[in-house]
Amino acid sequence: MVVVMKERVTTEQVERVIAHLVELGMDVHRSTGAARVVLGVVGSGKVDPRLIEMMDGVHEVLRITEPYKLASRTFKPEDTVFSIGDVRIGGDEVIVIAGPCSAENEAQVNATAAAVKRAGAKAFRGGAFKPRSSPYSFQGLGEEGLRLLRNAANAHDLKLVTEVMDISQIEVIDKYADVFQVGARNMQNFTLLRELGRTRKTILLKRGISATIEEWLLSAEYVLAGGNTQVILCERGIRTFETQTRNTLDISAIPIVKQLSHLPVFVDPSHGTGRRDKVAPMARAAVAAGADGLLIEVHCDPDHALSDGAQSLFPSQFDRLMAELRIIAPAIGRSICLEPIARRGWAR
Amino acid sequence: MVVVMKERVTTEQVERVIAHLVELGMDVHRSTGAARVVLGVVGSGKVDPRLIEMMDGVHEVLRITEPYKLASRTFKPEDTVFSIGDVRIGGDEVIVIAGPCSAENEAQVNATAAAVKRAGAKAFRGGAFKPRSSPYSFQGLGEEGLRLLRNAANAHDLKLVTEVMDISQIEVIDKYADVFQVGARNMQNFTLLRELGRTRKTILLKRGISATIEEWLLSAEYVLAGGNTQVILCERGIRTFETQTRNTLDISAIPIVKQLSHLPVFVDPSHGTGRRDKVAPMARAAVAAGADGLLIEVHCDPDHALSDGAQSLFPSQFDRLMAELRIIAPAIGRSICLEPIARRGWAR
Amino acid sequence: MVVVMKERVTTEQVERVIAHLVELGMDVHRSTGAARVVLGVVGSGKVDPRLIEMMDGVHEVLRITEPYKLASRTFKPEDTVFSIGDVRIGGDEVIVIAGPCSAENEAQVNATAAAVKRAGAKAFRGGAFKPRSSPYSFQGLGEEGLRLLRNAANAHDLKLVTEVMDISQIEVIDKYADVFQVGARNMQNFTLLRELGRTRKTILLKRGISATIEEWLLSAEYVLAGGNTQVILCERGIRTFETQTRNTLDISAIPIVKQLSHLPVFVDPSHGTGRRDKVAPMARAAVAAGADGLLIEVHCDPDHALSDGAQSLFPSQFDRLMAELRIIAPAIGRSICLEPIARRGWAR
Amino acid sequence: MVVVMKERVTTEQVERVIAHLVELGMDVHRSTGAARVVLGVVGSGKVDPRLIEMMDGVHEVLRITEPYKLASRTFKPEDTVFSIGDVRIGGDEVIVIAGPCSAENEAQVNATAAAVKRAGAKAFRGGAFKPRSSPYSFQGLGEEGLRLLRNAANAHDLKLVTEVMDISQIEVIDKYADVFQVGARNMQNFTLLRELGRTRKTILLKRGISATIEEWLLSAEYVLAGGNTQVILCERGIRTFETQTRNTLDISAIPIVKQLSHLPVFVDPSHGTGRRDKVAPMARAAVAAGADGLLIEVHCDPDHALSDGAQSLFPSQFDRLMAELRIIAPAIGRSICLEPIARRGWAR
Repeated sequence: MVVVMKERVTTEQVERVIAHLVELGMDVHRSTGAARVVLGVVGSGKVDPRLIEMMDGVHEVLRITEPYKLASRTFKPEDTVFSIGDVRIGGDEVIVIAGPCSAENEAQVNATAAAVKRAGAKAFRGGAFKPRSSPYSFQGLGEEGLRLLRNAANAHDLKLVTEVMDISQIEVIDKYADVFQVGARNMQNFTLLRELGRTRKTILLKRGISATIEEWLLSAEYVLAGGNTQVILCERGIRTFETQTRNTLDISAIPIVKQLSHLPVFVDPSHGTGRRDKVAPMARAAVAAGADGLLIEVHCDPDHALSDGAQSLFPSQFDRLMAELRIIAPAIGRSICLEPIARRGWAR
Repeated sequence: MVVVMKERVTTEQVERVIAHLVELGMDVHRSTGAARVVLGVVGSGKVDPRLIEMMDGVHEVLRITEPYKLASRTFKPEDTVFSIGDVRIGGDEVIVIAGPCSAENEAQVNATAAAVKRAGAKAFRGGAFKPRSSPYSFQGLGEEGLRLLRNAANAHDLKLVTEVMDISQIEVIDKYADVFQVGARNMQNFTLLRELGRTRKTILLKRGISATIEEWLLSAEYVLAGGNTQVILCERGIRTFETQTRNTLDISAIPIVKQLSHLPVFVDPSHGTGRRDKVAPMARAAVAAGADGLLIEVHCDPDHALSDGAQSLFPSQFDRLMAELRIIAPAIGRSICLEPIARRGWAR
Repeated sequence: MVVVMKERVTTEQVERVIAHLVELGMDVHRSTGAARVVLGVVGSGKVDPRLIEMMDGVHEVLRITEPYKLASRTFKPEDTVFSIGDVRIGGDEVIVIAGPCSAENEAQVNATAAAVKRAGAKAFRGGAFKPRSSPYSFQGLGEEGLRLLRNAANAHDLKLVTEVMDISQIEVIDKYADVFQVGARNMQNFTLLRELGRTRKTILLKRGISATIEEWLLSAEYVLAGGNTQVILCERGIRTFETQTRNTLDISAIPIVKQLSHLPVFVDPSHGTGRRDKVAPMARAAVAAGADGLLIEVHCDPDHALSDGAQSLFPSQFDRLMAELRIIAPAIGRSICLEPIARRGWAR
Repeated sequence: MVVVMKERVTTEQVERVIAHLVELGMDVHRSTGAARVVLGVVGSGKVDPRLIEMMDGVHEVLRITEPYKLASRTFKPEDTVFSIGDVRIGGDEVIVIAGPCSAENEAQVNATAAAVKRAGAKAFRGGAFKPRSSPYSFQGLGEEGLRLLRNAANAHDLKLVTEVMDISQIEVIDKYADVFQVGARNMQNFTLLRELGRTRKTILLKRGISATIEEWLLSAEYVLAGGNTQVILCERGIRTFETQTRNTLDISAIPIVKQLSHLPVFVDPSHGTGRRDKVAPMARAAVAAGADGLLIEVHCDPDHALSDGAQSLFPSQFDRLMAELRIIAPAIGRSICLEPIARRGWAR
């Protein structure tokens, strides 16, 4: 914290601020320039910058960013890379997670899993408990949905990613899934994050719709502080004044997070745009900007999906997108599933 | 829902859209104007407007707002007015809820309760479970805090308002509080809202930091749908590009919500500004704009508060604010606690 | 400017940063704390903080705000108060400027001027050159409009406020108006601001739709730097994610600007809300929050206005609003036109 | 325009709304559904939707978007492609415009032009008149700067792009430049846009910092309405709540504009991020998302640039970026300067 005093300040005012900070357990380093006195403040005490800012003679208090520690590059300079079974997250390969918004029935889940595997996805996504902004919408199949998703993932050798909405769901989801997804609305559900920090499974933490990057990293800190180091950050669009899309997918968050943090960054272009025809351009942009992975909604029959069909790709669109991504990835020294079933099929 | 077709559209395209809507269980009313075909769509089916928007020949889909029903003035034209004991919410009197951010100890809780009662507050606020954006901050006293708050409220004839963060806390808070406060971060915690809809206590629902007014009313709908009609909406600032304050308190939300909904609207100028010296102007503005009540942080000793001291008023500042509000309220035909203890004291 | 070095930094890195700053003409004050080195930087040189931030070993550069000088309270602690004829701006009286969006014809201009004078307005507003977002809308009457506005203002003893859109219009507007209004879209038209700084008439400077308060004060600085000290700042709504109103009127800007700057602050609730039925609540809120004046659209026949009729008050609504404001103003020790013609008429 | 009546509406209310619309010169198509009456409204009259919305019995007025005509795909379905000399805009090749923020002196201008040409840029950019948010910053070299830029462009066979800030500058800039750039702050300077519509040179129109895509296209409409069809739209970042970058570069605007309009879309990743180390990822993302071109700040010696050095690439960084872009462009069926001087040089 840096305290900047006003230009016309009395010695007493400066001393009163210093005394107050020292009383709160801080070390203060005073620097008297030509125009202003500036105080550098560090220490283990707890100080609310706004309280200092209201003291007489104080011009403003500048906060040194990074209240997060474990999530920062200062703490851990090298990239975090970890494995979920044979899938390496944060490495040279760009990992694609794909699947439907919700598990609806066995046929839909299986057909979609087969399609995404064939195109090169490494993990399967799908929801069993759905958070819906209206109480009158489809709320998911519950544990039966989890069972369907797990079976389909197993049948097609895919990892399974599914959303956890509440601490009461952790136990049951833990029985089925490889990755707990935390949705944007729960990014600051600290009770949930703390519990997930006690598990030892990967957490995919979506950015809140109006969360700053600093707040997002602080939420990751809750999980890391519990000893769970397998955290994936997932950008999914922020709220802006623009109304043409549901949200504005913040592609610039990718290089910024990569600079501030060692954690892998994924992008969800499906929720980020809300419309199928915008998914491919934004998925390509994400990979070009350096994303470590993608989370994409694909449905075997989007026109009859029970939820989010409008933003789900048809399997053929997903195939084509994967082919485009394979061209782009090498531009930044990366690869993307070089041996999909489909290609092997063609070779035969 | 209104479907606007493109200017150059074929009969087949129009018919395909109509057929699809009918298949989904909707009634369609076709209106063929000089330049465009417009389809009015109603019915009990479920349609994702984005799916329709992607059909050939469709220019755009205009959504008729108000997916909420019970919260709307269409459903209930007259203002909702209800009582918590002898305190009437939504009536002619502007109700002030005041107290510290957190319960810290018995002396602090009692001194603050005495001060706010004296100035004319009708309810006491204070937190026992604190949601903090950093895992390293003070997290509250838990049930012991609730006990302290209840005792102080009883001693000074005040109703008690406290925040519930998770369904696991409902039972214990129910034993102590008169009003469940739902914080901005939980505005879309639908699991929690649904449970609170099953209680029969007043719910004070804060607006999420980036929630539109429509989303806010939809969240109220979750509570109302459970049969609990005692919902207070509380504006507390939205996130904008401006950085001079924590949030931008959206005073214009007051007349807008009053028009769209029958529910009472309160304003929290303490969180909305984040700084004590901005609380009084914004509290005055809220009453002048027609708020039904205020939620204000007051602390007997803000400089030593364990949380949010910077935005807590000193008791003397709160006294003065209440005096100013008593002048303003009659401008819109309302009153504000005409017989505080303090005034009665002066009269003797 | 304060340069915060990384926690693990080498002496060479610190010295290279210091040497670079000194080369750029700055004085550097080094402060070595337990955890970090912090550099206080002042001087007359020009430094781009982003360039320093990219140097090795630098954690971040914190900018001390207030690149504006003449507009700040640091430069001039007491409130700016000045007179336009017999109308005092920034004093105890809250000044109301009212009138139609555009001058349309003589009858409309006169009827509206009579109505606003009767209710207690001190100045008349109206546009002759209109900036319209569509090239196909009504663009104003030009100089003929100015003549009509001036005549009506004279007939009713009102000052005249009108918008200047381009430096080419300064000369002609100067012949008719008492106050040059700079619209939100021109807030950063620095060519225009610089020219207006050379005039000696009052400038009413609207806040840009996405301007921070700091940028707004910097724009005022352009006028002040030219020697024109009669600047009124006018809040008129900012762009946010909320779509229920055109803009979000930022009432909290009033106390913030009053703290940072000595300049008077007005509020335009008509553009800030865009709807007539929201104007009165927001006008009351502005006065309650401490605004020095209001700018309100009133039209003798809003239903047939050529522009912005939807946000123009009927004369009877304006009468009622003024009566409400007279009750509110004393709450903050101010008054509002105590002797309107209307009241004098009643007394006879 | 679609007028949605309230659910409980009287016949008189509906008829009054229809009568009013007809009086205003509109055709009204009434559609009486089970729950609501919906009115489709078209015609050549002028109606302010907000006025209708305030009539008794009206629930809301839904505006059919696209008040712009000439800029829309409805008006012109095929992509606009045009040539500036031998440079084709909007075709298969992605066009890169590069150069310094400002012309500073002959050596700087020449060295930079040589560098960008060598790497494959097709046009040179540089400012001679600079809009600066502070009145105390470097304001540009004026016509002398234009002369330097033109000479360098000629020497290296590059087109010249430079910013016009005011109608008074059109004449002089027209003597030197191939493309008039309109800056973000001038996007709604309609006086300027109208004048540029009368020229027959290409206009590169930057998106305003808080402009919706619809407003941006409306501004393009001002130029097109004057008969100038050579308009390039250029995304350069929008203002959001995020503070880690100057602006949030809205990559999703690319596919959206491509869908709504036939005009070519460029992206400026330099202003969009404000930091050199974020330029390359965002430039790659823009091309991957389908941009028709890029506008990039490159300086022969960024550390000593007089303005915007922090966001200017070093020539070597620009070389590398161009190489990466050449890999990405084919993923979407495009190319990017296949025969730069540098490559030809290597071949020898």
